[in-house]
Amino acid sequence: MNDFLELCKVRQSCRNFADKPLEHEKVVKCIEAGRLAPSGCNAQPWSFVAVETPELAAQVAQACCQMGANAYAAGAKAFIVVLEERATLMPRISSIMDSQYFAKNDMGAAAVSICYAAADLGIGSLIIGLFDREKLAEILDIPYDKRFGCVIALGYQADETIRPKQRKPLEEAARFV
Amino acid sequence: MNDFLELCKVRQSCRNFADKPLEHEKVVKCIEAGRLAPSGCNAQPWSFVAVETPELAAQVAQACCQMGANAYAAGAKAFIVVLEERATLMPRISSIMDSQYFAKNDMGAAAVSICYAAADLGIGSLIIGLFDREKLAEILDIPYDKRFGCVIALGYQADETIRPKQRKPLEEAARFV
Repeated sequence: MNDFLELCKVRQSCRNFADKPLEHEKVVKCIEAGRLAPSGCNAQPWSFVAVETPELAAQVAQACCQMGANAYAAGAKAFIVVLEERATLMPRISSIMDSQYFAKNDMGAAAVSICYAAADLGIGSLIIGLFDREKLAEILDIPYDKRFGCVIALGYQADETIRPKQRKPLEEAARFV
Repeated sequence: MNDFLELCKVRQSCRNFADKPLEHEKVVKCIEAGRLAPSGCNAQPWSFVAVETPELAAQVAQACCQMGANAYAAGAKAFIVVLEERATLMPRISSIMDSQYFAKNDMGAAAVSICYAAADLGIGSLIIGLFDREKLAEILDIPYDKRFGCVIALGYQADETIRPKQRKPLEEAARFV
């Protein structure tokens, strides 16, 4: 890759996963990027479940697809489930903030780091925010009361065409003072 | 840069900003990375205020430092304030989720993207989650009821030594099934 901004432009939600095996080492590298992400007070309020076994991956895809929003996930070769873990903040901060105050921000940072790592390795990714939590908990042996961040579908892209990014223009998104 | 994982390892919270001017074009590139970040339903529930005027930057630093947690911010040459904006989700999703349900995750993704872009440009960054919101709103002419994501301090690092990353080991952070 040339530079990080190029990676930002190339990374997109994958809508067509190829029927091509995804190497375990690459899934590990994606997890590494999530693991190394910054977090409030370095609390790392996350854990990851990487699903690579085809039978389990198919079940996870179904738990994501049956909510209707992510039929694209069906062909993914692996999934990384981001779970929320208890955060320990610095005493000065925990005296005024709830321990989980930064957790959603932090899980978002970890999730996008996983996606950038995937893109850098030539792998497509899709962040899924809506899924059947009860079913996922059952399939993956996750405690019923665990809070979920998101599920990231991974796999090679069948079509590597980069779609133009639909974003608010800079003038609308930012103000310089 | 070599690859994204290297960038993850090199990016760290800057604790000693150098007294060296920070180029406006580089701040714009950092904002670009935030603007291009993925978000739930591509709702982009964020806006950015880039503070580069020295007088205003000093005031922002003070609004961050006076909470006691981020004395490191004092020497930063610029700040990017991440604000929460109203999200419009896809109808299928908004019928069951609050419109702002993904906003914190999304702002976390945008914030860390800004930090990666900074690191890639050789710039140090520091994500600040605790600050005097009322004071910031006053200094930057932000509506009083606006929700804040975080404040990111930017500047060249006086000391570029890369500290070893303190993270949960892979075996503790991840499970492979």
